[in-house]
Amino acid sequence: MIHDLEKKFKDIQSYIHKKFSDFEDSNDIDVSRDEWKRPEGGGGITQVIANGNFFDNCAINFSSIYGKDLPKAALARTLSKKAEYGYRAMGISVISHPKNPHIPTSHMNVRIFAILDQNNDIADWWVGGGYDLTPFLPYEEDIIQWHSSAKAALEPFGKNFYEDFSNNCNKYFEIPHRNERRGVGGIFFDNLTDFTSINESMKFLKSVAECYVDSYSNIINKRKETQYDEIQKEFQLFRRGRYAEFNLIYDRGTSFGLQSNGRIESILASLPSDVKWSYKKSPEYDLLQENLLNYINKDWNV
Amino acid sequence: MIHDLEKKFKDIQSYIHKKFSDFEDSNDIDVSRDEWKRPEGGGGITQVIANGNFFDNCAINFSSIYGKDLPKAALARTLSKKAEYGYRAMGISVISHPKNPHIPTSHMNVRIFAILDQNNDIADWWVGGGYDLTPFLPYEEDIIQWHSSAKAALEPFGKNFYEDFSNNCNKYFEIPHRNERRGVGGIFFDNLTDFTSINESMKFLKSVAECYVDSYSNIINKRKETQYDEIQKEFQLFRRGRYAEFNLIYDRGTSFGLQSNGRIESILASLPSDVKWSYKKSPEYDLLQENLLNYINKDWNV
Repeated sequence: MIHDLEKKFKDIQSYIHKKFSDFEDSNDIDVSRDEWKRPEGGGGITQVIANGNFFDNCAINFSSIYGKDLPKAALARTLSKKAEYGYRAMGISVISHPKNPHIPTSHMNVRIFAILDQNNDIADWWVGGGYDLTPFLPYEEDIIQWHSSAKAALEPFGKNFYEDFSNNCNKYFEIPHRNERRGVGGIFFDNLTDFTSINESMKFLKSVAECYVDSYSNIINKRKETQYDEIQKEFQLFRRGRYAEFNLIYDRGTSFGLQSNGRIESILASLPSDVKWSYKKSPEYDLLQENLLNYINKDWNV
Repeated sequence: MIHDLEKKFKDIQSYIHKKFSDFEDSNDIDVSRDEWKRPEGGGGITQVIANGNFFDNCAINFSSIYGKDLPKAALARTLSKKAEYGYRAMGISVISHPKNPHIPTSHMNVRIFAILDQNNDIADWWVGGGYDLTPFLPYEEDIIQWHSSAKAALEPFGKNFYEDFSNNCNKYFEIPHRNERRGVGGIFFDNLTDFTSINESMKFLKSVAECYVDSYSNIINKRKETQYDEIQKEFQLFRRGRYAEFNLIYDRGTSFGLQSNGRIESILASLPSDVKWSYKKSPEYDLLQENLLNYINKDWNV
């Protein structure tokens, strides 16, 4: 069962890697693929595209971790079984940092968290994940499309899924010390135990991942030829600072990785390749920032 | 009493700002000086030098915060009085990010944490602070001088101060997820209640600040003409990523600032202006990294 699930997640990883690689039109880029083992159990495959014509960097990670004691960040409280025989956490996590600031940064994650029985099989489980969009130079139609396609994809799985998950997303991707959201939202779900079988759960996660890829690819194809200037690029680098702040201080996935002694280079492959912080802001920065805040500090639920 | 203390800390701030400004030989730099008020009580003065010929950025911050309830990060457990009439936290914090990677990044902080009585005067207090050095292209003689001068400066104040404080520093500036220290250490003290008067405490803090400035200026003067290449500069930007990770995830000063609703732009003025993260490392990076780790993952206590 574990092996079969791993295969399904790896297929999702390959699918996304193939789709995203197609946006690169140069061979002079850094492509990495590393399989790694975790000393305490499990491991993963880290795939990174970097220094491309299209991506500054993009990480597409698979990991499947086995452990005895639940890490603090695991949030297994909704499960009926205790983890006396250990747990298995498995999933895909994607973060993309395109070069062109007209294209948003995006994040997607699908995962299963399972309590094992004495045969090392799954006794109980939940699924979690979602995806969210972080624009720099925002386009209203892209944001609406992002949300509408999520709604359509979730409809067959649960009547309230989109409404609940988009609200979750707004709440989760908050940067309290900045009083800002990370972006324009999307969907986010955790501790989801609605599915009656692992197969149903996987079908759902696969559908989430595919919808993300389609939806993000649509935006890329619409914006990739749009020219940008130095001021817009620099604004993107400053805003990436917010992304680093969120991931390092608040993100539960990152905390889980650090607490469960995951492979640090894989966990932090989500960080942007280039980031700027500046105390003094230019008038051009202030204008771009003001515009962006009008987009990110509101609900886009459709 | 509070006003008098604030004056003394502001004098330290001016002294450091003057000394550091002298390293800039251009007028075409960003110099900021902002006074700010905290809605809940207190405020500060933030001084930043940025985009210079010498500093990429450097923040010299004064803050004096009044509050009713102790923030979690305040660590007031060593004090005899309860904070029924509120607290006052006051101090200077300096972080420098020089352009030239032959010159280390440095940090210095001196502060008083006081429990107030019903007349808004100081009922009990501790002092905290210290300074530490984060080299990129390390020089053994600079590190030894950094530690020796700290030892000499602390000697008159307490027989075991240097030994205790340099051990504290090694422990505090650790980045557990990287299994690395932040740098080559220095001194760090917290909850220090050894002084019989506030004046004695301030004399001590002033001496710590002055020793830091002298010691760091010595290193600057020795290394500022040393040429560096693109690979060395890029290595500095990668290593600054570690600095951002430490400050955002582990630093108690940053946590205190965020928890006490301090002015976010002032708190995060400590972050480096330019940071890089990269999954794939070049052989040149690996060599510089290997060399650096030999210096930072050891005790330099003299």
